[in-house]
Amino acid sequence: MPYRAFDDQNCSIARTLAIVGERWTLLVLRDVSLGNRRFEEIRRSLGVASNILSDRLATLVEHGVLERDGDPPEYRLTDKGRDLRPVLLALVQWGDKYTAGEAGPPVEHVHTVCGHVAAPRLHCSHCGEPIGPRELRMQPGPGANEQQREQYERRLAARR
Amino acid sequence: MPYRAFDDQNCSIARTLAIVGERWTLLVLRDVSLGNRRFEEIRRSLGVASNILSDRLATLVEHGVLERDGDPPEYRLTDKGRDLRPVLLALVQWGDKYTAGEAGPPVEHVHTVCGHVAAPRLHCSHCGEPIGPRELRMQPGPGANEQQREQYERRLAARR
Repeated sequence: MPYRAFDDQNCSIARTLAIVGERWTLLVLRDVSLGNRRFEEIRRSLGVASNILSDRLATLVEHGVLERDGDPPEYRLTDKGRDLRPVLLALVQWGDKYTAGEAGPPVEHVHTVCGHVAAPRLHCSHCGEPIGPRELRMQPGPGANEQQREQYERRLAARR
Repeated sequence: MPYRAFDDQNCSIARTLAIVGERWTLLVLRDVSLGNRRFEEIRRSLGVASNILSDRLATLVEHGVLERDGDPPEYRLTDKGRDLRPVLLALVQWGDKYTAGEAGPPVEHVHTVCGHVAAPRLHCSHCGEPIGPRELRMQPGPGANEQQREQYERRLAARR
């Protein structure tokens, strides 16, 4: 079953993974974010086969995540691609915490406005306060289908 | 090349993907977050083959992201697993913006402390301000290796 079939699901995670969930794709985006913009730079940096890299770059361009421009061609993030940064950051932060070991994080982030090394934290867009690990609850949104609403109600009832 | 080989890279994204980057794994975590805790519930919800689901669950338990408990067995997020929530949230937010269409988001999040539907936003852990899309700069961290530091210096020099 191809990853692209994920976009049949009424789920924003599945639909996003249909575009960026293939093996290597997020590492390609990492590389472009780091400043590797040419095919050969990315290929060398990742050690990925050329045909796979071609396929991933084509998908990202097709979906407007990257744009390809210039001669020799360079790949750059579009605004849509830049909006994936929170995904990469969240992966980085988990990896820093659980996989980096004693050496510490290989990369750190500087908030250019205040000038300090900083770890981005999730805050509530309504009240502005930091969101604790158990302080978010999911509920059906406007785009939920009947089945998803029923499933939600069943779960609520089971907890009562 | 197995995804697990990604953990050879000195990169927190690659090492995280070595654990959660396999096809289906993030959807398994989504399902457990939504409250699907039994093998059969998750299998039905995802429409994934049993052998693949067994493999993904075993990997997640092995890495301490899920714990398996009870009879019949249920899978639950550990603290380490709950720390992956920002990854899922970031995928949701991008998908809501770019893939949900006119129907709107299938799922919304309520900040249980203030009681409002809210989109989590990234703020700087140092100054507390929201971080704009171009306001983070990457630099080598304490765990960077020589090659990574040199590459960073070369890129800086190229921009001067």
